[in-house]
Parts: sequence; structure tokens; C-alpha cells
Amino acid sequence: MDFFQCMSLDKARDLIVDRLAGIAVNSEIVHLPDALGRVVAADIMAKEDLPPFSRSTVDGFAVRSSDTFGANEAVPALFTIIGEVAMGKESMITLQPGQAIVIPTGGMLPTGADTVVMLEYTEQHDASNLMVLKMAAPGENVVSKGDDIEAGAIIVEQGQKLAAQHIGALAACGWAQIPVVNRVEVGILSTGDELVDIHEPLQSGQIRDVNSYALGAMLSEIGCVVKPLGIVKDSFEKFSDALLAAVSTCQLVVISGGSSVGARDYTDKAINALGDPGVLIHGIAIKPGKPSIFGMVGSVPIFGLPGHPVAAMTVCRQLVKVAAHSLMGQKQSFDTFGITACLTRNVPSVPGRDDFINVRLSTQEGKCIATPILGKSGLISTMSEADGIVHIPADKSGLYHGEIVEVLLHKNNQ
Amino acid sequence: MDFFQCMSLDKARDLIVDRLAGIAVNSEIVHLPDALGRVVAADIMAKEDLPPFSRSTVDGFAVRSSDTFGANEAVPALFTIIGEVAMGKESMITLQPGQAIVIPTGGMLPTGADTVVMLEYTEQHDASNLMVLKMAAPGENVVSKGDDIEAGAIIVEQGQKLAAQHIGALAACGWAQIPVVNRVEVGILSTGDELVDIHEPLQSGQIRDVNSYALGAMLSEIGCVVKPLGIVKDSFEKFSDALLAAVSTCQLVVISGGSSVGARDYTDKAINALGDPGVLIHGIAIKPGKPSIFGMVGSVPIFGLPGHPVAAMTVCRQLVKVAAHSLMGQKQSFDTFGITACLTRNVPSVPGRDDFINVRLSTQEGKCIATPILGKSGLISTMSEADGIVHIPADKSGLYHGEIVEVLLHKNNQ
Repeated sequence: MDFFQCMSLDKARDLIVDRLAGIAVNSEIVHLPDALGRVVAADIMAKEDLPPFSRSTVDGFAVRSSDTFGANEAVPALFTIIGEVAMGKESMITLQPGQAIVIPTGGMLPTGADTVVMLEYTEQHDASNLMVLKMAAPGENVVSKGDDIEAGAIIVEQGQKLAAQHIGALAACGWAQIPVVNRVEVGILSTGDELVDIHEPLQSGQIRDVNSYALGAMLSEIGCVVKPLGIVKDSFEKFSDALLAAVSTCQLVVISGGSSVGARDYTDKAINALGDPGVLIHGIAIKPGKPSIFGMVGSVPIFGLPGHPVAAMTVCRQLVKVAAHSLMGQKQSFDTFGITACLTRNVPSVPGRDDFINVRLSTQEGKCIATPILGKSGLISTMSEADGIVHIPADKSGLYHGEIVEVLLHKNNQ
Repeated sequence: MDFFQCMSLDKARDLIVDRLAGIAVNSEIVHLPDALGRVVAADIMAKEDLPPFSRSTVDGFAVRSSDTFGANEAVPALFTIIGEVAMGKESMITLQPGQAIVIPTGGMLPTGADTVVMLEYTEQHDASNLMVLKMAAPGENVVSKGDDIEAGAIIVEQGQKLAAQHIGALAACGWAQIPVVNRVEVGILSTGDELVDIHEPLQSGQIRDVNSYALGAMLSEIGCVVKPLGIVKDSFEKFSDALLAAVSTCQLVVISGGSSVGARDYTDKAINALGDPGVLIHGIAIKPGKPSIFGMVGSVPIFGLPGHPVAAMTVCRQLVKVAAHSLMGQKQSFDTFGITACLTRNVPSVPGRDDFINVRLSTQEGKCIATPILGKSGLISTMSEADGIVHIPADKSGLYHGEIVEVLLHKNNQ
């Protein structure tokens, strides 16, 4: 692992974003409910005002505010009740001075009215005569046409990943069909003579292919369409053939295993053999995950991740995700901020390297406590028992017992 | 809204959990990749040791540690190299004293060997003779059989929502088929004479049905299967018929609109008319969302949420989610903790009520800044522009400018 110069994680991220600028997957039109979790392909504007008409926000009486001028409990303003606004209907009445109309919450303000007086500030002794006991300001208890979102205003910006509240806003403005960016198609290759798929019997000396499933799941979580391309045994020819097929059919390729510099590490050589620009990064100052590769063949980005699942997942979360978001034009979110927790023990770290530590969370008097999961590096159990990850930045030489740290939650906690 | 006694949010949560205890949806068996995001229906145990054999973690030589006793650069220990371990194969050789065998990272330790010496601590002048320059401890550079996960140990506990790292651990232990809890089938009804679906033209006085889409999306995010049951116009008979159909075909029913106590608010009456135990909560000390209902007909929980989308989504996030998780037996996660951010202005709040404020996030010198989104209550734009939510607990009378607050991120930021 001292064979190659390591690039810092930040520089690697910048290089990836820079190289992928201008490369984008296509977009498609989907029904509104199917747009959940997708990235919108264009700024989406309100076609009409929201609300589309001035609405009452309370049950009461629509009146002219000027008619309530000076009204109080001793000297109420007097009105003639001329009818009732029906929900969901336009009121055909135009309110004249001294007239009031019954209006429900959400009812359309009739022409002539500019305010709504709540029931509790009125008295009514018969069906047609109303006393208003308080002055009402223009626009009181009313949401005016376009107050919420004006026609032509942007509801969601291009690059926004759509969550429930965006789906709601789009429905409010009558958008039934949404242009969204296609999910990136990611091909996943596992390499190693010792690997066996979960559907095959395990022979002595063999282990399960974890990365096809773990990386596939993580890339699904990120919003990709995953194409498992299977296990390639350690031969340069087979590996090159599989990589060529992957690059021809996928928009992003992730290989695990074979990313180091040993005799059986073909990823670097195979990427360079396929075409320009070839390998752009080999070795990243990150733990776990140092022997990682980023390269491109034409406009297809390729990641070579270590065979160790914990290392492969760490680099996938830190770098492959950046590439997938870039290809989908997804704007930056706040997922790089974690929840705060108190660390239960010292964690040493080497400066100049970004470290990622799995932690278990618990609560104590309502506060969150993070316990680092120890064990030899690369153990699957350190990963599966974790609730989240603590990042030790390259400029720190470890974290201290009792220190308040940020924990990036795993998806099961979101 | 002063017509009914309000229950605190915490009490409402406890009551819901208490009432739904013992009610659970069925489970099914799915392929491992399809188990992502699902809740496991039983404790899942390792069928075999992980790793299934003792493996080297480095490239080097497998030897007996006792043979390296006292070795150093001046007085190396001498070994005869008797062969090489092939990746993915069982070594048939039993190592005798004084013998060494070449072993790659991940290779199976042969019988007799108990340690691996890294290449850099050896010297080799011909093909068969090796000098080891350093003592090696037993187990050094080796992950022993079962070191990671022992056969019979629980890999994931019942109630765990599966994220990528769990999928990885299950693959590592050879689990191809996973028992998971069915997704809860939630029926969603919108009520209101003024509502029009996004596929219909909008007439004057009408507004779009937002909640079918916004709540549907949020319930999808939570892990439910959503059945949109359409818009019911404000008639008690139509409403009761629709509710009966919903209760008969769904495991959870969410109604929006009609949850207050006005003449057109049928939810309370209709739930009670359908059967026991009927309405259990009417009015919750939460803002927005006060006029909310929780009830049950037989074993089917029903929520009556306000018609205002922002209020409906707030109560859905705080309470319907609790019910859905309970029905799926999903164990508590850490999603109630937010990221920390600095508030840009004072936000007043009434003690005795849980307030939820939409905020926009930004970063300033690497720190997260939360700006409350103002505007008349219930505006869709306050929701769609938000990156997350700040909770003001019932025991506080507001938050202050400059205060460090926790922000629960919306899903698009995760």
C-alpha cells in the first residue's frame, strides 16, 4: 500500500465532480406519485396561482373591512346577512356595503368582500341581522389568490430530489406528470477466485460474494438502478471482457476486489487497456478504503473498490455516491451533516487521512451516545451492528472520550 | 378548536403504541436484494461461521508462530517453503515444524499454521529457503474461523429495518431468502366538497387534493403500500360508506379533512358509528395539527387528519408513522435525533403544546444554519421550501436567535 501516492478524499471528490461535469443521464416523464425520490429534470413552475382564489381561513362572515371601522363591543357594526358561500363553488353574489355573507373555512371570498370576521366576534339574533363586535383589517383571516405560490414561480428547482412535501406542492399546483432524471444504471462486478454467490454451495477455502449485494443495496438507496454482473474469476482476459461489457451497457461501473497493486489486481491495468482517459486516481487517503481506483473509459466512470466489504462500502458512500449524484444532476443536500452524540472512548487516527469509524448508538437521559465498534478491521459484524458512522477528518489525530461528534446515520435509522 | 380537550403528543404516541400492541401484519419471504428497506420478521442467525475458515489478512507466509520464537534481523528464523496456498481452495498440506507456505490475502490458513508473516519481515534468496526477521504472535494477520460472526449468532434482530450493511452481512452468511414483514397497506381518503384531483380541470372555488399525494408519498417513504381511495364529498352517508370500505380492505386508514368539530366534520361520528372501540383521541396539543383524531374499528387504526396539508403532514410524521412502525414490529430507530444547526431568529411558541417549524438550511463556514420559513400557517410553500423541521417541545416557550437546535431532515436530504 506504499506503492502509490494517495490522493486526499476532498481532492478525489473534486476530481470526480470535475470529470463528470457535462455528463448526464437522460430524463423521462413520470406520474406524480412515481416521482417520489427522483431528481427533477427541470425547474417546475406553478401554472396557476395558489390558492387559485382568495379563501377564508376560518368559519365566519365575509364583509368589507371598511364597514367594520370603529366597531367594538359597545358600538357594534351592523350587517345584513345575504346568504352563504358554498364550499367548492364560486359565489355569484357581489357584496354591497353593509352586507355580510356566511363563509366556511376554505370558502371562496365573494367579490366586494376583503376580510372575514370570525364567529366569536359576532352576535346574531335572527337569520338576517349580524352585529360585528371588532374592527377587521383588510385581508384578515384570508389567504389571497397567489399568496402561497404565484403563477410562474418555481415550485421545485432542477436537481431537487423529490420528497413528500415536494409531491404535495406539485399536486397543489396541478402537476400530474413530472420530468425526472433517469436513475443511473450501475453495473456491479465482484472479482476474486475465492468468491461464491449466495445461491451456490460453499466449498472449503471459499467465501460469499458480499459486495454484489452490499454495494447493490447501497447504490439502490442512493437512487441507482443496479445491474449485478456477477463474479469474475482472477484472470486478466475474463476481467477485461467483463469490464468491456459493463462499460458498453452501464452508465457507471463499480468493481470490487483487485484494486490494489498485487499480481492478481487487474482493475488498474484493465481500465487503462480499454481506452482514454483511463485511471485517474489510484490510492485515496481514507481508512478503510485506501487501495481504491477511479477511472473513466470514454464518458463512463469506473470505480475499483477494495474487496473488503467494509472498505468497499465506505468508499461507495464517500465517492461513488458523488458520481451518481453528479450524473443525475442532483443538487447538494445536507446529508453530510450528522446527528450529534457523545463518544464513549478515545479513537486514535493518523493525520493526513480521513477515517470512518462504525458506531453503535444508544440514548442516556435523552442524549445520544456513540460507542465505537471495535474489532479487527474489515469485519462484517462491525458494519452490520452499526447505527452510523463517525468521520475523523484528515486534519485530526483522533477523537476523545466524551467528545461531541457528528454521526451520519445509516439508512435504517432514517 | 376549544371544543375538545387536547392530549399531549407524548401521551397520544403512548396510547397508539399501547392500543396497537399485539396487532401485526403478516410476513413473507423475499429474495435478499428485495429485503432492502424491509423489516425482518424474525431474528436471523448465522448458519455457519464467518469467516468459514481461518484467513490471512495480508500477503505473506503462513508458519507456526512457535518457530519464529526469538527471531530478529540479526538472528532470523529459517524456514523451508513447501508451496503456495491457492485462493478459494483448501490447502491439502499440513505444515510441519520449520515449514512455511506462501499465502495471499484472503487465503485459507493450512493445518498446522497459526500465523502469517508479512512479506516485508522476510528475506528469500532462493525458491525454497525463507528467513523470517521478526517474531510472529499466534493469530497475527489472521482472521480465525468464526472470528467475525459465530454460527448461531444473531446477524439481524427481529424488527430491524434492513439497510445496505445488513444486506451485506446476510449475504456474507449465505442468506438468500429473508423473512420480512409485509408492508402495511394504508388507505388514504381525502374529504371536502372543494377538492379536485390533479387529473381533473379546476373550477372556480375549487382547490387541488394535495393530501392524497403528499400523505401517500410520506407513507411510501415510511415503508407502507399506499392505496389512494379518492376524494369523498361532504355527506355523512358517502363518507361512512367510504370509511367502511377502507376499514374492510386496509390495515391502516388515513383520512384528511373533516377532523374538526364543525357541521361538515364527519370523521369522529363516522368512526364511532362503525364499531368499537371508536374514537380514542380527538384533539392533540400540537401545532400545526391540533384537530386530529385517532380511533380504531376492530383492529384497524384510523387517523383523522386536518385538511391543511402542512398540518396533515406534521401529524402523519409524528403519529401515523408510529402506528405504521408498530404494525410492522419495527424497532425504534434514531430518526428522532436531528442534525444541529444555529437558528437565525426567535421563534415564539405556546408552552404545553409541541410546535413544529419548517426551516431552510444553509452552511456558513462549515456550520449549519437554520432559517425558519415564515408565512401564514398552512401555506404549501412553507413546506416545499423546507429542508427540515425544528421541534419546539411542549415545555419550552419558544427558541431564540443564535440557539443551537436539532433539525429533522426531510427525506430529500438523506
